[in-house]
Amino acid sequence: MSLISDLTALVGPAHVLTGADATRLGHDWTGNYRGQPIAAVRPANTAEVAAVVKLAAARKTAVIPVSGNTGLVGGSFTDGGLLLSLERLNRIRDIRPEARIAVVEAGVILSRLHDAAEAQGLYFPLWFGARGSAMISGVLSTNAGGSNVLRYGSTRALCLGLEVVLPDGRVLDLMSELHKDNSGYDLRDLFIGAEGTLGIITAAVMKLVPAPRAHATAAVALDTLSDALTLLNRLQSASGGLVEAFEFMPATYSRRLAEVRPDLGLPFATIPPVTILVELGATAPMLTDPDDSGAIPLTALLQTALAAALEEGLIHDAVIAQTETQRRALWARREAAAEITFAKRPFIDTDIAVPLDCAEAFLTAIHDRLPAIAPDAETLTVAHLGDGNLHFTVFPATADKALHDRVVSAIEDVVQSLRGSFSAEHGVGLSKLNSMQRRKDPVALDVMRAIKHALDPDGIMNPGKVLPAGAAK
Amino acid sequence: MSLISDLTALVGPAHVLTGADATRLGHDWTGNYRGQPIAAVRPANTAEVAAVVKLAAARKTAVIPVSGNTGLVGGSFTDGGLLLSLERLNRIRDIRPEARIAVVEAGVILSRLHDAAEAQGLYFPLWFGARGSAMISGVLSTNAGGSNVLRYGSTRALCLGLEVVLPDGRVLDLMSELHKDNSGYDLRDLFIGAEGTLGIITAAVMKLVPAPRAHATAAVALDTLSDALTLLNRLQSASGGLVEAFEFMPATYSRRLAEVRPDLGLPFATIPPVTILVELGATAPMLTDPDDSGAIPLTALLQTALAAALEEGLIHDAVIAQTETQRRALWARREAAAEITFAKRPFIDTDIAVPLDCAEAFLTAIHDRLPAIAPDAETLTVAHLGDGNLHFTVFPATADKALHDRVVSAIEDVVQSLRGSFSAEHGVGLSKLNSMQRRKDPVALDVMRAIKHALDPDGIMNPGKVLPAGAAK
Repeated sequence: MSLISDLTALVGPAHVLTGADATRLGHDWTGNYRGQPIAAVRPANTAEVAAVVKLAAARKTAVIPVSGNTGLVGGSFTDGGLLLSLERLNRIRDIRPEARIAVVEAGVILSRLHDAAEAQGLYFPLWFGARGSAMISGVLSTNAGGSNVLRYGSTRALCLGLEVVLPDGRVLDLMSELHKDNSGYDLRDLFIGAEGTLGIITAAVMKLVPAPRAHATAAVALDTLSDALTLLNRLQSASGGLVEAFEFMPATYSRRLAEVRPDLGLPFATIPPVTILVELGATAPMLTDPDDSGAIPLTALLQTALAAALEEGLIHDAVIAQTETQRRALWARREAAAEITFAKRPFIDTDIAVPLDCAEAFLTAIHDRLPAIAPDAETLTVAHLGDGNLHFTVFPATADKALHDRVVSAIEDVVQSLRGSFSAEHGVGLSKLNSMQRRKDPVALDVMRAIKHALDPDGIMNPGKVLPAGAAK
Repeated sequence: MSLISDLTALVGPAHVLTGADATRLGHDWTGNYRGQPIAAVRPANTAEVAAVVKLAAARKTAVIPVSGNTGLVGGSFTDGGLLLSLERLNRIRDIRPEARIAVVEAGVILSRLHDAAEAQGLYFPLWFGARGSAMISGVLSTNAGGSNVLRYGSTRALCLGLEVVLPDGRVLDLMSELHKDNSGYDLRDLFIGAEGTLGIITAAVMKLVPAPRAHATAAVALDTLSDALTLLNRLQSASGGLVEAFEFMPATYSRRLAEVRPDLGLPFATIPPVTILVELGATAPMLTDPDDSGAIPLTALLQTALAAALEEGLIHDAVIAQTETQRRALWARREAAAEITFAKRPFIDTDIAVPLDCAEAFLTAIHDRLPAIAPDAETLTVAHLGDGNLHFTVFPATADKALHDRVVSAIEDVVQSLRGSFSAEHGVGLSKLNSMQRRKDPVALDVMRAIKHALDPDGIMNPGKVLPAGAAK
């Protein structure tokens, strides 16, 4: 029997797609990667995922897991492989508020988990623009970051347990809800961030946290990135570490925002060199209950700290959200980042991380070098400044492969000189394979290849992603 | 040339020990494991560690890394292998307070890192009784936990980068200080907690945190474990998550403490069914600066919460430390745990984790079953209750291997029925190999063996630890 007919027998004809229906499931948010899968299959549960993988493994057919199609690195591209969509594994199996956990399947959309946690008075802190489409499996497979990493960590820090279908179709049960477990190697963190190259994540136990009972959110106008870092340290110190987000938007960002999304407005009448979106969150009654004697509301705390910074000239202006609508408006300007980046083509987008105190050094160095490489290029920066994570985009005058490579190489040179990473939160996929080859410690690459070969000797799991071609050990 | 003469040529005769001098380096805190290494070698730096491993690998001689000798599971035992001591790799290479990191070598003693962080106004939050002897390499290799995991996580959560000598002597450079890095598989977390079976950790980048500017510490007397969990939730809620430690000591613990260490005293005139040691820590000025208008000192916050709990009968009594000396005295009673456990022999010690709300179910079930298995056995419990981590020790009337196995099996049965782990924070080593074989998901064991075989095909790195014998994939 053919693979297609075997798959159809397994999951039913409605869930085996071919042609344009299959291709649609393989796109991502960049629009840069379009291939033709032999088919797309939508299993209903873990057992069906395992059975599909066994069918593919028997024929050594490549399996490419896909969930919310919000990737940015070509991680779900395939030409000739079998797309395995996790969208039907969409149950929230359990929420136990007293244990602060949610047991979710791979295809649960991130914002559904947000809502389910909120209904229990809790919070799932992973937060980024694509939350209305991104699914748990993709979030875990890329170890997604976002705007709250500063306070709560990346996806890896929010996961207690996993269920994984291995490349041979066996199911690996790591569905623990334990906060301590030293029974052998940390397999969970190996599968998280492996971008589907070691197996398919089908379910997970995620941590929930107490819902902040108050937020204080502001847009702040400053002169320099360095002043912004000083402000961050002041606010962390004044609040005892309550800063949840600290997002950096230089004038290049504000100008493009005004151009592409004029409907969103800008917080200041004149665009300042640097705009920071800062948000504090608090669960403690002494900061959230204004009727309590002695309580200092969180917004007052932020206001006092910003007033002092204004007084001494560290900042130029600030707008504090007074309502949830105003808060959402401040965030909408930040969350339009992907949209305003991809609206102009060709673009060369990056996702770099540097040590916390090196972000300015990166921007200075790359702006020094860029004119010699791409004379007419515009740039756009937006950064999770508290994590040292910058999304620096170059818009060259023309689409030219050699120019693209020279620009990426120049960026990588600067990043490497600062001991940074060319891949902070979006993953490697296809788009950063060259960077992996050029910049990653060769011994680390060898170890990764040895692990890949040990778990997937036939190389059927999302082949060609993450690891550049090279001899497996 | 013999291995000994090769090693002597490499590191000098003063650093190649044989006979009793070598054996001394192989002991651990339980005193249960004594073998005879062929030699012990003390390389001075990473290059020498790599050269030693290469010499051993060429002869397929087993290499057993050892650092502070405070292990509890036989992880550094060897009969016939080469002990590799990391004690001379003892430099703190760098501390960068503005980046909140310390770059340390494998042999740095934990308390030296505490002191070095404190000198910069910062804090390294990993905290346990053996901190004056335990070294960074052992701490990382066992993913050590301790008393502050509730707030700061285990060792894995406190490490940003690693340097590892692989089983073939190559050096793997993962010395990142980045807070986000998605450039390939998470090798760091694979080597952390691998107990030296995949390579030897020679250096690390550790996270530092702001030093708490105030602590509030108390001993609390309660009736039941369940009441203690209610109290923990109240205190977390009242403080906005500032509980750093929540240690559970039932009457069995207090009685043994009074017997073995009468000099340490007890907090209450009559031993209550449950004593809790609770500590809150705060960095925020509104909780730490009593001169600030509106500030609520942390101790007053704890006092108010405990007074309310006393009023409604949730707790029976409480003693709040008023001075640092009183605080140290409260901690000394908790930190005598290993000493009072190992003072009575034979003992069967365990290190289990259960879901946060299942600790009482574990104790009830095991106390029901134990009399039928070990009629005259005494027990001793001490727990990091906020992590669901219990150290439950059984003192059988006689040293009997079959009885020992029956007791361990009964404990494992209960733990498994609660979806817990037989190994929470001490590691597997030799002492929990049977538990790994009996209780770990067989697919997970297979994946671990495949990884071990891929990285260490000749099996020279700390052989026989962590993974029970079985076919490598």
